[in-house]
Formats: sequence, C-alpha cells, structure tokens
Amino acid sequence: METVSINKAHGGVQGVYSHASAATGTPMTFSAFVPDHPPGTKLPVLWYLSGLTCTHANVTEKGEYRAACAEQGIVFIAPDTSPRGEDVPDDAAYDFGKGAGFYVDAVREPWAGHFHMRRYIEQELPALAAAHFPVDMARQGITGHSMGGHGALTIALRNPGRFRSVSAFAPIASPLNCPWGEKALAGYLGPDRAAWRDYDACALIDDGARLPDLLVDQGTADAFLDEQLKPHLLQEAAARAGIPATIRMQAGYDHSYYFISTFMAEHVAWHAGRLKG
Amino acid sequence: METVSINKAHGGVQGVYSHASAATGTPMTFSAFVPDHPPGTKLPVLWYLSGLTCTHANVTEKGEYRAACAEQGIVFIAPDTSPRGEDVPDDAAYDFGKGAGFYVDAVREPWAGHFHMRRYIEQELPALAAAHFPVDMARQGITGHSMGGHGALTIALRNPGRFRSVSAFAPIASPLNCPWGEKALAGYLGPDRAAWRDYDACALIDDGARLPDLLVDQGTADAFLDEQLKPHLLQEAAARAGIPATIRMQAGYDHSYYFISTFMAEHVAWHAGRLKG
Repeated sequence: METVSINKAHGGVQGVYSHASAATGTPMTFSAFVPDHPPGTKLPVLWYLSGLTCTHANVTEKGEYRAACAEQGIVFIAPDTSPRGEDVPDDAAYDFGKGAGFYVDAVREPWAGHFHMRRYIEQELPALAAAHFPVDMARQGITGHSMGGHGALTIALRNPGRFRSVSAFAPIASPLNCPWGEKALAGYLGPDRAAWRDYDACALIDDGARLPDLLVDQGTADAFLDEQLKPHLLQEAAARAGIPATIRMQAGYDHSYYFISTFMAEHVAWHAGRLKG
Repeated sequence: METVSINKAHGGVQGVYSHASAATGTPMTFSAFVPDHPPGTKLPVLWYLSGLTCTHANVTEKGEYRAACAEQGIVFIAPDTSPRGEDVPDDAAYDFGKGAGFYVDAVREPWAGHFHMRRYIEQELPALAAAHFPVDMARQGITGHSMGGHGALTIALRNPGRFRSVSAFAPIASPLNCPWGEKALAGYLGPDRAAWRDYDACALIDDGARLPDLLVDQGTADAFLDEQLKPHLLQEAAARAGIPATIRMQAGYDHSYYFISTFMAEHVAWHAGRLKG
C-alpha cells in the first residue's frame, strides 16, 4: 500500500492510498480518515460507497464527514467506484464502465477481466484496511450515495451480521426497475434477470435477506428521484419484511454533495449509536 | 446579476452568481450562502477572500462553513480572486495574474485595465450584495486564506468601522517582506515600495490603522510558513499597536482546505460573537 497524500484534518489524519488490487487487476485508490485516538486502540469503521462518475475524492473533499467522525471516533473509508487505467475497458456513457462499477462482479466481456468491485469491496479492501488501519472489524457500518447507496444496501444484505449499521443517501433502490440498473446489470451480468437479484436491494429483501434497521435520506428535488431512485420500492420491501426503515424525504434537496453534506453528520451519529454501543 | 447555480444545503441556499463588474470590466463570479431565516429579516454577513489559484469554488466545496453559518444565521460570501476572461492579461506563474489579484488596484500596464480587485471587493460587491441578499451591512465580518487573509486584513484596516470582526487563515502577514508580495506588488503597483504600504497589514498597523481584535490560525506544517506567511510579523505589529491578536499556531496542519475546514466553525463562531451582539 502506497500513501498518495496525508493531511491533518479535524485532529486526525485524512489519507489517500493506492495499492495493487488482485480483485480488479489494477491499481486502486481509496481515502481513509482516522481520527485522533489513544495509541493501540481500534476504532469502528464506516464504509462510504460513492455514486456514478465519482472517485474517492468527491466525498473526501465535499462530504463534510470529518468533524462528525472525529467527534464520534469513527474511521471513514471511501473507495473508488470502478477499476481505472488505460487497459481497463470503458464506455462513452457516464453511467457504464469507468466510474460506474455498480459494485458487481462482471461476468460478461469485456468487463469480466477487471470489473470485480463486489469482490474488491466485500473481501480485498476490508482485509487491507484491517491490516493497515486501527479499525475494529467487529464494528463496521456502511453507507453510500446513489449507485453507492445501492452498493451499501446490497453488500449489507448479502453479508448478514457483518455490518451493525446501514444507511444510504438517495440510493438506487432497485436496479431491476430503473434504466441505470437495467443498463448496468445487463451489461455486466448478461440478460438473465434472475442473476441480477443478488444486486438488487429489494429483490434481496424479498428473497429473505435482512438488515437490523436502515436510515435513508432522499431529496424531493432530486432530478433522478422518479425515474431511477424510487425509494418507495425500498420502503415497501422493508415493510413486507418487517425491517425497520426510516426513509426521510428531505424537502427541496437535490442529488448533489450539498444534500449529502447536509445530512452527513446525522448519518455518522446514527452509525455511531449502533457501532459504539 | 445572473444565477449560475442554486442548491439547498444545511437548510439554506448555496448559490453561485455572476454579474458584469464595472470595477474589473469583466464578468465576475461569486458564491453566497444564505441560511434559512424569517422572511423580511436581515442577517450578518461574513466575507471570505480566497488564496492564490482559487476561485469562489474552493471554499464553497471544501470550506465546511455551511453548518456553522446555518447554526449562527450568517450569510457567507466568497468572491473570485481576480478578473477572468480571454481579454484579461495573465502570467504563466501561479502567483501573478489570473487567480492572483492580491486584492489591489493595479496601476501598471497591462494589469491596470482589469485588475481592480480592491475596488471590486471594497465597493462594488458590497453594494451588489446589499441590493440582492438579506444582509445587514451594519454587521459585517471578514476573513480569508493566505493571499485572501492578506486581503481581509488590509481591507479591514483601510476601512475602519466597517467590519465588526476580522480573522484569517494562514494569511500573508506582510507582502513587503515576502517573495509572493514583492512580486505581486511590484508587478501591479511598480517599484515604489511606499505605494505598497496600503497593501501590507503590518505597514498599515504601523502607520496607524487599527482593528478591534483579531483571530488568526496558522498551521505549523504549512510549507509557506517561514518564507511567505510570517505570522510573527503580524503578531509583533499588533503588539506594538495594542491590537488584541489571538494568533494560534496549530500543530501539524498544512496550508490546505483540510486545515481551513478544521477551524472554519471556530472562526464562524468567533465572528458570530461579534456580529450578533
């Protein structure tokens, strides 16, 4: 693991790191904020998965999480959204290929060679984090935005017991039922929609997966709300399954980091309540 | 005045605006955050002047001021650092020309045609803000970073009574005594160093200008500390003049927005204490 940059911030250390990923076969970059803490102690960790077109940098610069994480004593790790590099295939559209890994393990060519973001986020990066940062892997939370909200929900649902806390900002509630999801899952996985269910929060819930509880914030002025995000599908699936889901419609907020940063401290506090108990 | 963008954030409105500036003879862009407030009321305003290479966008995206300004009920306005446009002269270096207006009114060619950032910040933009935003111009504070810290200090010193509160992040304490300042003031004003004193916080203080009090944060790991910033010169000038100056050396912090955002809420609270009394 190589240190790209280190900056003191809010009493802790905001770092950016890169490493050779076996999962993607490329270098991968991520950011990690480690609050000030007594030597030898381990802290809970909150994973943040980013949305379409983003890298680690968007939330690191605009997410306004450091004050809250420093106060709560929580490590915050933000991975990239896809493999990168000249030999990684791409698509001209913003919503497929680089910057749009959708947290799946692709099986279709030309994507199957590098686009293994599920394996990367579920297995490789946690092992790397546990080895290099003062994190208590028994106390993990996960959140994310839009495509990353979809990632957070589906990864938590597929890994019962791993995450004590799960939240999302404007998540794609059901890739099976929106253009972004249909394009990405067809492209990475092929036309058999049954294979998509592993990557659809609502389908996973309907198929029996559970979460302890859930916090979602969604702006009412979000341009993607009706066509792509559809939080009512998540609300209905959670209700059918008896998952306590707090899905808050936030009046006037859009899909940007102005929205995310507004509610970030509340999400960090919500995770802290479950990670520090 | 034209609205470039509007985003709801922290209960208020983060806007970016552009207008034709008479001072610079160019379009100028700035950002303004207006917290939620009762209709018809006016709020105190905090001006933030940015550093070399920056536009309004750096602090707007990375400054982490909105939560504090929303809590305190303070409007936050961030102008650009120079005129922009194809017919504005520039210099190949990052520390002169576009992005490096140094908050002076240039008198040397080719700069004298457009580089009137003093007039723009002192006269034109306040009049525009008073006309378009719910600001109480009897309650103004000013702050800034690096070159913008120099701007905040010198503008406050030259306009006694206008600002109830003045602070700075890692300001250039004395352009007369550092390479950045010598290059910029010689370039914009010419070789007569007597003419530079109007743009040097320490010289203005020595020549009799006063501030009510002053808060400065400066990182000890700032790469520009010894050669360019020299806060001890400001501390000494303030001491000679009897200006209460709190100059805090912050261990381990650098010159970046990771430093600024760490102490932003404390600065906003410090201004609020003087603007809301």
